[in-house]
Amino acid sequence: MTNVDKIPPRDRIFNAAVSLFAQKGYSAVGVRELATEAGVNISMISYYFGGKIGLLKDIIEQFYNEYSEIIKNSLDNRLPLKEQTKQTIRSIVNFFKSRPDLCRIGITELPYDSPEIAEFKSEKVLAVKELIFDRLFSNFSLIIDDKITISIISPALISVIYSNFLLGDVIRNVTGVEFDDAFYERYSETISTFLIGGIMAVAAELQNKKGSSLF
Amino acid sequence: MTNVDKIPPRDRIFNAAVSLFAQKGYSAVGVRELATEAGVNISMISYYFGGKIGLLKDIIEQFYNEYSEIIKNSLDNRLPLKEQTKQTIRSIVNFFKSRPDLCRIGITELPYDSPEIAEFKSEKVLAVKELIFDRLFSNFSLIIDDKITISIISPALISVIYSNFLLGDVIRNVTGVEFDDAFYERYSETISTFLIGGIMAVAAELQNKKGSSLF
Repeated sequence: MTNVDKIPPRDRIFNAAVSLFAQKGYSAVGVRELATEAGVNISMISYYFGGKIGLLKDIIEQFYNEYSEIIKNSLDNRLPLKEQTKQTIRSIVNFFKSRPDLCRIGITELPYDSPEIAEFKSEKVLAVKELIFDRLFSNFSLIIDDKITISIISPALISVIYSNFLLGDVIRNVTGVEFDDAFYERYSETISTFLIGGIMAVAAELQNKKGSSLF
Repeated sequence: MTNVDKIPPRDRIFNAAVSLFAQKGYSAVGVRELATEAGVNISMISYYFGGKIGLLKDIIEQFYNEYSEIIKNSLDNRLPLKEQTKQTIRSIVNFFKSRPDLCRIGITELPYDSPEIAEFKSEKVLAVKELIFDRLFSNFSLIIDDKITISIISPALISVIYSNFLLGDVIRNVTGVEFDDAFYERYSETISTFLIGGIMAVAAELQNKKGSSLF
């Protein structure tokens, strides 16, 4: 029995899909290629996942489950807001770093052709939004509660935390900076500062507008 | 002569590639599919662009040329920093909005397999970095000049400005907010405030560290 044989076929298919979807994009991967990479018969993909779309759904679900758990576990109300934010961002960055393929699919894979995936992803995003806006940011003295600002800020937050993983490779070519553990420690710190400064400024501006609209 | 025939074949190929690469991702698109979509013989793609990779290079070049022009034209030293930043961000947002396919490829298409594309993209990013850090941000009282912070902040800036286009669709399903002109006006304003607040906080923290390292 080789090592591969010890991994159950369902997991082999899942792992092959995570790796191939992340590398080539969901649309570019065929079921035959998936089956070959996983070392299974092509019919196993329908059997376990109901096809390629079911696999994508499972991967997205896995990503959001882990992501929500990490945020929940990092929020610690006994810490000051800044420390709590930094701790949460450090945990998210570690997650992005340790599961790059899973996170790339969970964050950037767009459900172009599937309303089913779009709806599914929306439910998951809602849960994360509640964790961040209703739990973490409710500690900010200025609360962001209007729909438009939330629609602008939610994608901005995740994009900033993910920015190194989305666009870092090109900037590394430019600056020559090594992405080692020390870099990611600085990254978590700097991104936390950036994000807290940004949110504070937006919240202050909203508060100003509310104040001035009384006249 | 139909309308399509009036467009030169080179442009037809370029436009078909922008649309297909954006929709499916570069790896998922074949030259045969490109030729069919453009209504040209397959050999024309090599003739005009030296193949699929040449096309990607041209698209990335087109994106960065337009992007740099927009930033250059929006920077107006006679305006206060905040206004100058808002004006630049509003122009960039309009560009992202009006050329979604071109911008998606320019920003998110990763040069996984091609050092040639990676190097090419890096040169272009360097030019934009100089415009933003050396021209726009040099007006900030606190200058960000260390390589590590620039490696962190550059991707963060572009990710924030692009966040609605990367992740907005899902949040729209959650909040029900319409992405109309009024929304993008608010988006440009809010993102500018967020970004200025974030940069100021990072610059202040750097300054504090420099100060305290004297002791």
